[in-house]
Amino acid sequence: MVTLGLVDLEGLITDPATLANLSHDEAEWAPAGTPFAALRPRSTEDVQRAVRECAAQGVPIVPRGAGTGLSGGANATDGCLVLDLSRMNRIIEIDPDNLLAVVQPGVVNDDLKKAVAARGLWYPPDPASSPWSTIGGNVATNAGGLCCLKYGVTRDYVLGLEVVMGGPVEYGTAVKLGRRTNKGVAGYDLTSLLVGSEGTLGVVTEITLRLRPAPGQQGTVVGAFPGLVEAGEAVALCTKRGLQPAALELIDRACLQAVEDWKHLGIEPDTEAMLLARTETSEDADGLVSAFTDAGAVWTERSTDSAEAEALFAARRLTYPALERLGPLLTEDVCVPRSLVPVMLARIEEIGAKHSVQIATIAHAGDGNLHPLLITPPGDDNARIAAQAAFEDIIDQALDLGGTVTGEHGVGLLKRDGMIRELGPDAHAVQRAVKSTLDPLDIFNPGKA
Amino acid sequence: MVTLGLVDLEGLITDPATLANLSHDEAEWAPAGTPFAALRPRSTEDVQRAVRECAAQGVPIVPRGAGTGLSGGANATDGCLVLDLSRMNRIIEIDPDNLLAVVQPGVVNDDLKKAVAARGLWYPPDPASSPWSTIGGNVATNAGGLCCLKYGVTRDYVLGLEVVMGGPVEYGTAVKLGRRTNKGVAGYDLTSLLVGSEGTLGVVTEITLRLRPAPGQQGTVVGAFPGLVEAGEAVALCTKRGLQPAALELIDRACLQAVEDWKHLGIEPDTEAMLLARTETSEDADGLVSAFTDAGAVWTERSTDSAEAEALFAARRLTYPALERLGPLLTEDVCVPRSLVPVMLARIEEIGAKHSVQIATIAHAGDGNLHPLLITPPGDDNARIAAQAAFEDIIDQALDLGGTVTGEHGVGLLKRDGMIRELGPDAHAVQRAVKSTLDPLDIFNPGKA
Repeated sequence: MVTLGLVDLEGLITDPATLANLSHDEAEWAPAGTPFAALRPRSTEDVQRAVRECAAQGVPIVPRGAGTGLSGGANATDGCLVLDLSRMNRIIEIDPDNLLAVVQPGVVNDDLKKAVAARGLWYPPDPASSPWSTIGGNVATNAGGLCCLKYGVTRDYVLGLEVVMGGPVEYGTAVKLGRRTNKGVAGYDLTSLLVGSEGTLGVVTEITLRLRPAPGQQGTVVGAFPGLVEAGEAVALCTKRGLQPAALELIDRACLQAVEDWKHLGIEPDTEAMLLARTETSEDADGLVSAFTDAGAVWTERSTDSAEAEALFAARRLTYPALERLGPLLTEDVCVPRSLVPVMLARIEEIGAKHSVQIATIAHAGDGNLHPLLITPPGDDNARIAAQAAFEDIIDQALDLGGTVTGEHGVGLLKRDGMIRELGPDAHAVQRAVKSTLDPLDIFNPGKA
Repeated sequence: MVTLGLVDLEGLITDPATLANLSHDEAEWAPAGTPFAALRPRSTEDVQRAVRECAAQGVPIVPRGAGTGLSGGANATDGCLVLDLSRMNRIIEIDPDNLLAVVQPGVVNDDLKKAVAARGLWYPPDPASSPWSTIGGNVATNAGGLCCLKYGVTRDYVLGLEVVMGGPVEYGTAVKLGRRTNKGVAGYDLTSLLVGSEGTLGVVTEITLRLRPAPGQQGTVVGAFPGLVEAGEAVALCTKRGLQPAALELIDRACLQAVEDWKHLGIEPDTEAMLLARTETSEDADGLVSAFTDAGAVWTERSTDSAEAEALFAARRLTYPALERLGPLLTEDVCVPRSLVPVMLARIEEIGAKHSVQIATIAHAGDGNLHPLLITPPGDDNARIAAQAAFEDIIDQALDLGGTVTGEHGVGLLKRDGMIRELGPDAHAVQRAVKSTLDPLDIFNPGKA
């Protein structure tokens, strides 16, 4: 029987219904265990105390933000303490002179965006979950998004961290990693090591983030293509011609069909793929229209008017809810060398046909990051098994093309085997050694990543 | 007596004169030991064999590139094997479709720049040593340069590495880290951990680099200021107004004086500081001229003509050789939050006066990265001692301002104490644990970083 000395801490949760809600993220089908309790710490000291107690009694700790993850990284293990960091949501500092912010992990991505925008600044990482997901969760998974094509992923914005760790230091020690300066090479880059480590090396309690000046006016360019090959050619032409859109998204026929069936936007039935781009200069917008046209687009549209731009992006925005009407979605997240996006899309189609699984694909095409969405009619167990087989086949094909099993969602529970295949035994041995060194008790999110 | 099974390897060097040349980098005053031998491997297999042999006999390995380092990171330790990687200088692949290159570590930075430019591409990191320094050396120190203000440092361009490692794998195993895709979050980011690790975790034998499209035409803006405060204010205004120059350099009165005494360019004696910027848009150039003027510049000049631009940058380019005429230079490399550059410059002046040491400062002002150059008359031992004291004082003041002891040159031998002070005991303990795990025999560049 666990008897944590935490019972007097404000926010300790043992109510089964609340615990159940805090036991999983949004990954369909990833197994979730039953936690011993959950805690909503208010301060680094709360986290330190929890980690000390858990270490003393060998209780696993599963940190979580908003629970919007798609790989089961925040799913509870049996008997664990869930650390729900959503109440540590203070923006500690915004420093416009040095283009940085210091935040607690529970700050919601969009809340930070708004706060820094009010000071004329910009925090670029924009995962689709940004209205709900927390900076701590974004750091744990090294979240990407649309504009990372031009502006990079979460890791590129993390200058420093405060992490409650164990191992080489006493469990419960708050260690400051990184810096406040724009550059710095003193010691190993443990900050980058912690970013994307999915809570397996410690609990992040404070984050120092790099900011950028507010972006200029953005334009939108959309193109409709008669086939995936033409759309892929358009993406390749953009790269060849040195264009630098801030986002370059692809949606396939299955996505377009689902949106059209639901909203009747008038999407032509002969449109097999659509590319949607955000641009920051008129030269880039001109260049994208030319590249789309030269690659065989049926039509292109552009706009710098924000309402029009929103309308042009409607198909992208509506894809996920349109597909969710059809059944639970299993979201893939493979990334391939960007020139191989058309090849990968063709292989995904084959996999869908082979397993009789409906697959619709959104891709951050400019990055080579594809999100095949596997749809299963509710309650159909055979469809579920087929979808899981298709999911594994997609991973195989991505690895076959020199790709990675996860571009931005993280390994969590769904991609562990895939990750081990991708890394190979040597790199995996090095990873395991780092984990054992920094968490010899294996209490930080055990069994993940 | 060491009896490495390496004697039949082509390129093994035991000639004392050559060994002496391979025993140190360009850091004045960093101690260098006497190697047992040196090897110029031609392949990963050569490196693997050397590492296996050295591990079996406990011989330390000191990897080096071109030896242009400024912190003693490549200095030999007694009885070590120097691994001179300059002959592994093949560009294995340039892939314009996926904006990446794969290179051996001995490729010279400028050679890579030229090769990718011929394909319409750009490898941005531009340390001052780029005509000589190798990509492997740049990776070891996470080298920066001028354009990292806008385009980031070496780490931002390293997608993947092949590293001959030990510890969790058998010594001599070539481990592939990272990826070829633009994004990827499978496992811990060991690639970033290795970048900047100064050869202490293994020997990098292959590097997969991210490339960018060739940059557009660059312009140059120069401003002369009556004081450091005004120059600092100009830098702050650039940040506040969201300007994004590709480089923003500052040189102080002592630099200007040395250049003027040597080349008689006609630099006005009342110019206390000069700012030199590279810009990529006319809006940024206009903005910089306004910011310089508003902050109190005595004069400003701008040009998009490349010959004129070179002339405007002459003072920057000539500073180092002009100062070297005055005596050996000890190059500092502190980095402070960028808004504190004027404060740091004032403190450096005070330190120079206190120790009667002549200090001239070049700064990557936009990044907050300062290179105070400490000059000592040749053969003057007291001046040397005073300079070393000033060097330590500068480190103290940078730390006091929330800065780092090394912005881009690396820790090597000269900054070890400073690094430990900066990290604090907890972060240092974590660093040491990572080192012991990945190199339990302590044979990879022992005693460094």
